[in-house]
Amino acid sequence: MEILPGPLLSQVNNPDDLKKLPREQLHQFCDELRQYIIDVVSVHGGHFAASLGVVELTVALHYIYNTPYDQLVWDVGHQAYGHKILTGRRDTFITNRKYNGLSGFPKRSESEYDTFGVGHSSTSISAALGMAMAAKYKGENRKSVAVIGDGAMTAGMAFEALNHAGVADADMLVILNDNCMSIDPNVGALKEYLTDITTSHTYNKFRDDVWNLLGKLPVGKRFTRDMASKLEAGFKGMVSKSSNLFEALNFRYFGPIDGHNITKLVDTLKDLRSIPGPKLLHIITVKGKGYELAEKDQTKWHAPGLFDKVTGEIYKKKLDVPQPPKYQDVFGHTIIELAEKNEAIMGVTPAMPSGSSLKFMMEKMPDRAFDVGICEQHAVTLSAGLATQGMRVFCNIYSSFMQRAFDQVVHDVAIQKLPVVLCLDRAGLVGEDGPTHHGAYDIAYFRCIPNMIIASPMNEQELRNMMYTSQLPTMNLPFVIRYPRGEGVMPEWKTPFEEMQIGKGRKIKDGQDVAILSFGHPGNFATQAIRELRTEGINPAHYDLRFVKPLDEELLHEAFGRYSKIVTVEDGTVAGGFGSAILEFMAKYNYKAEVKILGIPDRIVEHGTPKELQRECGYDAVAIAETVRDLMKDKVIVNTMIAG
Amino acid sequence: MEILPGPLLSQVNNPDDLKKLPREQLHQFCDELRQYIIDVVSVHGGHFAASLGVVELTVALHYIYNTPYDQLVWDVGHQAYGHKILTGRRDTFITNRKYNGLSGFPKRSESEYDTFGVGHSSTSISAALGMAMAAKYKGENRKSVAVIGDGAMTAGMAFEALNHAGVADADMLVILNDNCMSIDPNVGALKEYLTDITTSHTYNKFRDDVWNLLGKLPVGKRFTRDMASKLEAGFKGMVSKSSNLFEALNFRYFGPIDGHNITKLVDTLKDLRSIPGPKLLHIITVKGKGYELAEKDQTKWHAPGLFDKVTGEIYKKKLDVPQPPKYQDVFGHTIIELAEKNEAIMGVTPAMPSGSSLKFMMEKMPDRAFDVGICEQHAVTLSAGLATQGMRVFCNIYSSFMQRAFDQVVHDVAIQKLPVVLCLDRAGLVGEDGPTHHGAYDIAYFRCIPNMIIASPMNEQELRNMMYTSQLPTMNLPFVIRYPRGEGVMPEWKTPFEEMQIGKGRKIKDGQDVAILSFGHPGNFATQAIRELRTEGINPAHYDLRFVKPLDEELLHEAFGRYSKIVTVEDGTVAGGFGSAILEFMAKYNYKAEVKILGIPDRIVEHGTPKELQRECGYDAVAIAETVRDLMKDKVIVNTMIAG
Repeated sequence: MEILPGPLLSQVNNPDDLKKLPREQLHQFCDELRQYIIDVVSVHGGHFAASLGVVELTVALHYIYNTPYDQLVWDVGHQAYGHKILTGRRDTFITNRKYNGLSGFPKRSESEYDTFGVGHSSTSISAALGMAMAAKYKGENRKSVAVIGDGAMTAGMAFEALNHAGVADADMLVILNDNCMSIDPNVGALKEYLTDITTSHTYNKFRDDVWNLLGKLPVGKRFTRDMASKLEAGFKGMVSKSSNLFEALNFRYFGPIDGHNITKLVDTLKDLRSIPGPKLLHIITVKGKGYELAEKDQTKWHAPGLFDKVTGEIYKKKLDVPQPPKYQDVFGHTIIELAEKNEAIMGVTPAMPSGSSLKFMMEKMPDRAFDVGICEQHAVTLSAGLATQGMRVFCNIYSSFMQRAFDQVVHDVAIQKLPVVLCLDRAGLVGEDGPTHHGAYDIAYFRCIPNMIIASPMNEQELRNMMYTSQLPTMNLPFVIRYPRGEGVMPEWKTPFEEMQIGKGRKIKDGQDVAILSFGHPGNFATQAIRELRTEGINPAHYDLRFVKPLDEELLHEAFGRYSKIVTVEDGTVAGGFGSAILEFMAKYNYKAEVKILGIPDRIVEHGTPKELQRECGYDAVAIAETVRDLMKDKVIVNTMIAG
Repeated sequence: MEILPGPLLSQVNNPDDLKKLPREQLHQFCDELRQYIIDVVSVHGGHFAASLGVVELTVALHYIYNTPYDQLVWDVGHQAYGHKILTGRRDTFITNRKYNGLSGFPKRSESEYDTFGVGHSSTSISAALGMAMAAKYKGENRKSVAVIGDGAMTAGMAFEALNHAGVADADMLVILNDNCMSIDPNVGALKEYLTDITTSHTYNKFRDDVWNLLGKLPVGKRFTRDMASKLEAGFKGMVSKSSNLFEALNFRYFGPIDGHNITKLVDTLKDLRSIPGPKLLHIITVKGKGYELAEKDQTKWHAPGLFDKVTGEIYKKKLDVPQPPKYQDVFGHTIIELAEKNEAIMGVTPAMPSGSSLKFMMEKMPDRAFDVGICEQHAVTLSAGLATQGMRVFCNIYSSFMQRAFDQVVHDVAIQKLPVVLCLDRAGLVGEDGPTHHGAYDIAYFRCIPNMIIASPMNEQELRNMMYTSQLPTMNLPFVIRYPRGEGVMPEWKTPFEEMQIGKGRKIKDGQDVAILSFGHPGNFATQAIRELRTEGINPAHYDLRFVKPLDEELLHEAFGRYSKIVTVEDGTVAGGFGSAILEFMAKYNYKAEVKILGIPDRIVEHGTPKELQRECGYDAVAIAETVRDLMKDKVIVNTMIAG
């Protein structure tokens, strides 16, 4: 069924069209925009609640600012659907997050209105400040606006940017979109502070009251003019410089105002547009605004998948046979099992309790499992600090977000040989979230760090046993366990724990001529490929290395001793990854095999389903089978030549 | 000449001894400790001014706290010399920063008093919070203290930790050592804020005044009891929650107090030790305190090298012939030359203006070169933001500190293909600063990122030409230029600019049997080795690859076509580095050479002089010559066997 935009929205192809609407129609326009997002996302999927929460803000910004000359930076970008629809992408919006379709995030190559590509949180202030500084240097009257959530504001780099912006003398506006949420509810002292200034007889009102009172203060015997003037001077200093966290950092603070009042927003932004220097506008919004179920359960409706927009039923695959669990749930349940036996275990996640499934432990053992907010750096060093006291911390961070804590892993964990367990969820190609979220680099960026144990399970049982092994008292090194988004392969996953030997892989099967060496979940693609190849009379060997660091040299000596053609398979970049580790082994022992390395190619991989992307990248079962066939073809030719 | 500690210091072997001193003697004890630091550092070298600034704090902390049961975390660790001397390392302190001697930073393996290894800034609050949370969980009455400078406080991860600590309900003290300095003067809004609350009729005094005044407020006709109570309520909210940046984050704020008043410090810490929850004590100190020259020029005296403690003369090598410049100075002068011709050029450094030599440009072109404070993440994304506006930013960060901005390079620079120039100073083994500062990993961690150009100069001329090439209008990709600490090799370095072809190396010489492939400055070690080998009749070829990404495949086809034995040389880790890139090339084209990879081994390398460490790691001229000899020996044996 075709999804039709409302009458006003259907006339608006870009912000210039929007500016032609009279102010009185903006309310209706917002309703139509919101409805269009609901209509499309319910049928085509995507992030949902965040964009509903900023419909009015999005409209007001494009109504007042001269985009794209003025520069608008959306932090994270989950909330930018309205922006996309308003900026020339209304009719292509149904391709959102699909292979070769629109990106789910702002993206420079997609539109001149997307001034900065986003996906990870908390980059917007830095980027917008760069734009503002460039405008200042060039003498342009271009404005820069960063829209950032209260969750994203807790990440360190947002603070770094505020600290610089406060003295950079550049003209920028930060809009703090305060909805008390990340994907999960926001946590931390800043969140409490924001709630406080929003709810407790607002701040600004208090400031106004004080000024009024000061004007009325009676001067008498006990309350001298001198005292009054001291009080006033102190107040001025306090109120202008220090009364507010953002003002302490030299920002002019405005708000809080209702982020769903389009008239108020338009008026406020119009005023702010002409005020120079660093400014922060604090708006209060409701994530999921206008779709009642989403307002009530914001985490569930962050990205609900397809749903019936009328009943609110979220569609699920209906399957008759038991399915394998998601790797994240294996993690989430297994850590509880382990923690029940080992009192030293704790769980830490930076703002991914739902996505990592650490939430199960947070509910069951609230004194031992923590969401620390969007702060990967702190999460890792906190875990290191806990480890110095004998705690066994499972710190769970998505692969692509772990990039934020690279230095902390080197400096605080690896150099000190602290036995922190780093669980990297969403390793490999994540699919629809695209390039910013692919866990493509972790094998390479962790493999170069000394002292690290790096493992990846081929199935649920291996994940459980890696987790079990990582928390044993004898384990005295940092332990990385990386696993992909989505389901594993074992419906009956709750197997008894077995200790794994560190750096020991396993031979899955012997074979002829060619050996496939796999790391992690893609080992299952190899298994599929082998099944297919067998029907053609081709019979490669298969080894599941389990550890990329340390490598199982014994197993590799066997493989390289027996087979002169090797295929390596991984769901990480081929530049410096698992395949390269195998090449380093070869060089060390001077083996001369022919090696084909399959994995994520050394280029940016766009979005699509994981299957589409694995196909494109050439490390799925089809690609593995093809590679083995190619290697065998050479062999046949060589044999023929020799025979000839 | 033996350096003798003063009479009190000579009796104090550990904090227990210190606690036996009566309070009246602490002042003298501080004088002796300060003098001992001056005596040792002037003769043996090391970081100087920072430790002088915290003599009183160090003594007070160990006097009041029950170390090592109570946990003391020093941020960065430049300032921990006094701590080391007080905790069992007085007599070994003369080995500070020497090969096999004490580390220049706190280090867990060195002492139980060193609770957390440091070197990079801003980790202390996270680590100490982890310790505090563990104590809480275990029901121990152990205290945790983080000592952090105002410079380190600007880095995002410090803010992340404060944001969590404010709600973690754990018992910890953060001591903000405010001396307005990093290595260079501290910058940013926070610094201004701290100056403000310190100098403007202090905050706390104002707070006290206000309370006093409120107590005295007359109630009359115009100023009603209701108004007074409203004012008081507002005040309470404002003062207790929001009047101060740290209080906004739920910390109880104390100070500012004079950090050189030992009596006041001891009294204050004694009080604070028994107050639960998160607390911040703001102390004001002078970096270099007690050594007049250091107080006056704190950047110069941060780590002055050896000096005459009486005259203050800093010793310099006296050399008759012109010496090669430091690579950093080639950068510092060359960027100005380029910027004079290209108006789009800007320079950004996070708190390393002196160390990077960007200070020359900051002085000459203050609107185009910026120190943005200790915030590598922001520095990189700011540069990306500037690049979107057509600016050509040289963002200069030490290799080991760039680890902090890994995600920003992936997410904001590489995915968007923004032509930011990332200059990595201090790449390779840095020497005396040791494991936390070695630039060991950058080749590996950048090589796995798509779209990157990664170059390394073998000399000053190559550095200049790489810089020149990176800013040409045709250059449309991120461009990394990595170079080591210290001097290059060309006294006459100011050569005319020549455009380099991206991904093109050069053949330095042809040879026989063996080819040496080098990347960057260690190419000079190869040159030395070849000179030596020639005297033995061994004559390897030598290629300077210049780019590890993209590789010069044409040149490599030549090398692998002609030589069956290859030695690769780099000053980066051998796990995933330059050598691995060469192996990937081999696998791609199925070459079968024997390859020896020389570089930093896959283990933590400790401190020492660069020469000592290059020797130990086996990639200096001696090691290269040995490796070539070994490969040739094989050859002789093989030839003999064939002949036999």
